[in-house]
Amino acid sequence: MDHLITVDDLEISDIQEIFQLADRFQHGRYAIKKQLFAGNLFFEPSTRTKTSFIVAERKLRIEALDFQPELSSINKGETLLDTVKTFEAIGANIVVIRHRDDDWAKQITPYVSIPVINGGAGKKAHPTQSLLDAYTIFHEFHRFEGLNVVIAGDIKHSRVAHSSADLLDKLGAQVFVSGPNEHMDEDGKYPYVEIDEAVRFADVLMLLRIQHERHEKESETTLDNYHERYGLTIERERNMKSDAIIMHPGPVNRGVEIDAALVEAERSRIFKQMQNGVYIRMAILTKLLRNWGLIDEDDLEKC
Amino acid sequence: MDHLITVDDLEISDIQEIFQLADRFQHGRYAIKKQLFAGNLFFEPSTRTKTSFIVAERKLRIEALDFQPELSSINKGETLLDTVKTFEAIGANIVVIRHRDDDWAKQITPYVSIPVINGGAGKKAHPTQSLLDAYTIFHEFHRFEGLNVVIAGDIKHSRVAHSSADLLDKLGAQVFVSGPNEHMDEDGKYPYVEIDEAVRFADVLMLLRIQHERHEKESETTLDNYHERYGLTIERERNMKSDAIIMHPGPVNRGVEIDAALVEAERSRIFKQMQNGVYIRMAILTKLLRNWGLIDEDDLEKC
Amino acid sequence: MDHLITVDDLEISDIQEIFQLADRFQHGRYAIKKQLFAGNLFFEPSTRTKTSFIVAERKLRIEALDFQPELSSINKGETLLDTVKTFEAIGANIVVIRHRDDDWAKQITPYVSIPVINGGAGKKAHPTQSLLDAYTIFHEFHRFEGLNVVIAGDIKHSRVAHSSADLLDKLGAQVFVSGPNEHMDEDGKYPYVEIDEAVRFADVLMLLRIQHERHEKESETTLDNYHERYGLTIERERNMKSDAIIMHPGPVNRGVEIDAALVEAERSRIFKQMQNGVYIRMAILTKLLRNWGLIDEDDLEKC
Repeated sequence: MDHLITVDDLEISDIQEIFQLADRFQHGRYAIKKQLFAGNLFFEPSTRTKTSFIVAERKLRIEALDFQPELSSINKGETLLDTVKTFEAIGANIVVIRHRDDDWAKQITPYVSIPVINGGAGKKAHPTQSLLDAYTIFHEFHRFEGLNVVIAGDIKHSRVAHSSADLLDKLGAQVFVSGPNEHMDEDGKYPYVEIDEAVRFADVLMLLRIQHERHEKESETTLDNYHERYGLTIERERNMKSDAIIMHPGPVNRGVEIDAALVEAERSRIFKQMQNGVYIRMAILTKLLRNWGLIDEDDLEKC
Repeated sequence: MDHLITVDDLEISDIQEIFQLADRFQHGRYAIKKQLFAGNLFFEPSTRTKTSFIVAERKLRIEALDFQPELSSINKGETLLDTVKTFEAIGANIVVIRHRDDDWAKQITPYVSIPVINGGAGKKAHPTQSLLDAYTIFHEFHRFEGLNVVIAGDIKHSRVAHSSADLLDKLGAQVFVSGPNEHMDEDGKYPYVEIDEAVRFADVLMLLRIQHERHEKESETTLDNYHERYGLTIERERNMKSDAIIMHPGPVNRGVEIDAALVEAERSRIFKQMQNGVYIRMAILTKLLRNWGLIDEDDLEKC
Repeated sequence: MDHLITVDDLEISDIQEIFQLADRFQHGRYAIKKQLFAGNLFFEPSTRTKTSFIVAERKLRIEALDFQPELSSINKGETLLDTVKTFEAIGANIVVIRHRDDDWAKQITPYVSIPVINGGAGKKAHPTQSLLDAYTIFHEFHRFEGLNVVIAGDIKHSRVAHSSADLLDKLGAQVFVSGPNEHMDEDGKYPYVEIDEAVRFADVLMLLRIQHERHEKESETTLDNYHERYGLTIERERNMKSDAIIMHPGPVNRGVEIDAALVEAERSRIFKQMQNGVYIRMAILTKLLRNWGLIDEDDLEKC
């Protein structure tokens, strides 16, 4: 595992190692003794993923290099590859990239000599989010086998849905999808359930944000009726199993995919997911830096 | 005092403690031993306040997290509260917020578990600026009682005017206002003086920036005649008391509210205010982190 | 040498000292013990120069203060000088400035009490780029005398061309220019050669980026024919001397001024230039901080 581009890069043993590192970072403070630099190249808007990576880097005492696409040489016509190679030449030891193209990584990883982490690729992949989702589920249930996970919302346009469904399936969970028909993938890889049915048997109900900015034309499913037809209403939540949990990658449209009051419900793990995201990203950074021989066990210092 | 939202949150004893801490930071270097994170959420343009907070944080060795509204999930329709809760979940131990709404804090402080500092709220409040203004005055005169402070300019649209007038009044100074009638508050809480009279009796003449970007329609008072009618001209400055000082929160419109040459006059404390701003913000950060039990005296290390 | 504004500020002995410091930083890690702050005021788009300065600062453990023109008080009409004086008052010990005006430095350096580094001034000067170019050449050939350096491209609009030509000339190299006639300076200070001739005798071929964003009207030389008429094609590269090198300040328009495949050619020093840029900027920062008495030899600590 040289880069983390999609969940397909991950063996079960990689996932276990990442979870163990995340546990370690959750229970103690560790810093990398060597001065290392991480380039955070977010070509698309991001608050939580970018800030989560920066906090993860700073907790490990990695220097966080920022990049602002609208102020950059991208305006001068530089390619994505040349931007990444520039960061590498200037001193980045690792880079995190978010870009609207589904397949940007294919143009990058063969041509650079530093580890690359996918911070979000088009509609296709968002592996660090999927790892933090899986980690949150594992901490709740201590298993994946036999769990019913329903991912509800705009599956087709969601990189989170695609990545998380595949990862949870690999780990042994039963994955289902729910939401408007027009937002389902055509391949139908995962079985469809109506939301009213889903709330009754799901152990994990993972709601997705309605991503208006990615839709190319106005959908028939408007914000007005979405909540009632496909969202987690107060009434539907009452039908959930007693120990079932609610998840959402954020940012939440309160009152659309989820009733505003349920964001802070006892069974909601929405803010827990964000907390876990930092530990998972610390684990991924550490694992990749180790795999490339950039740090060894001695460089990771308890503080 | 859990948060600093308006100067009403401050008892006289709080102000004294903040001034003592600021004195301490002015005369020695101190760093917080623990790794803490501050979120700097500026939803409105800012150079001096934002940079001043970041320098204050870094002098204390607090990690400064940046936030860029135009690159963020705000574009995806996230509420201010959810953005703040996201920073809290990701690891911010304290947040500084500037936002155009006058009353944003009411939607935030009841729902978060970290201290919140107001870095500027609409037309209403800017308490850290007022504290640094008061601190600058106190270092000059060693008292507030009996001082005549004239705040001159666009009172109605200025959060600095509103905050500073109230704080200086609470501390015992006599506060007056001056400037175009259309820019005065309707409540008339503080007595009005003409600028020609003001310069003769003021101990402190606090000039405000003409904030064109906040005015909803073109004012009768144009930039062309403002200086002559309401500004601090060379002639008016000559009528000031020998030990009177000039203040301005910046950014200055040279030649409008103040003659360009007077910005660097001997009696000008404009750059002194900026210097003091860093110490005052270090003091506020320290006090709030202490009040929440996030640091104790041992965590503040001389270096 | 109090500031670095143009290469005219540099004596030969200054250049030697900068190169020696750069060598030292290339071969060992050094940090400044004191906490110092650098303001990075880039009013124009920049990835490589700004990031290069930030990495240089962080390697020396200088705090890097960011500045975003579109989020700043510049929108409120503040002058460049007042922005710099604000950074100085808030705590910047040194500033790096990039601005579109050719002569901004004249309005700044007489009025501030901290060292100023030019990170790019209009079409005129970019001295840190020129120093890293000269350093890269010196490491290759260990001399300047007798070297033929051809700078090819849009000389007239290039601050790199103007700065580098003058510096290399001062150091003893023979400087030539090449490219479309309309892009040549009117003064004709350096002899003109056709590109087909240039490739045969150049020891150093320094290609410039076609800067479309600076051209005021559409040029007759279009991107379509530029490569064939004036660029480094595969065929032309074959005629270069065996030990000649290719340089480019970046960002590269692959396929315009240089064939895409030649960017990574064995004789290309394009990424080496970026690496050297960090060491050169560390050297300049160190030298200026020393010249101002802000650090002494004891403050520079091997780590």
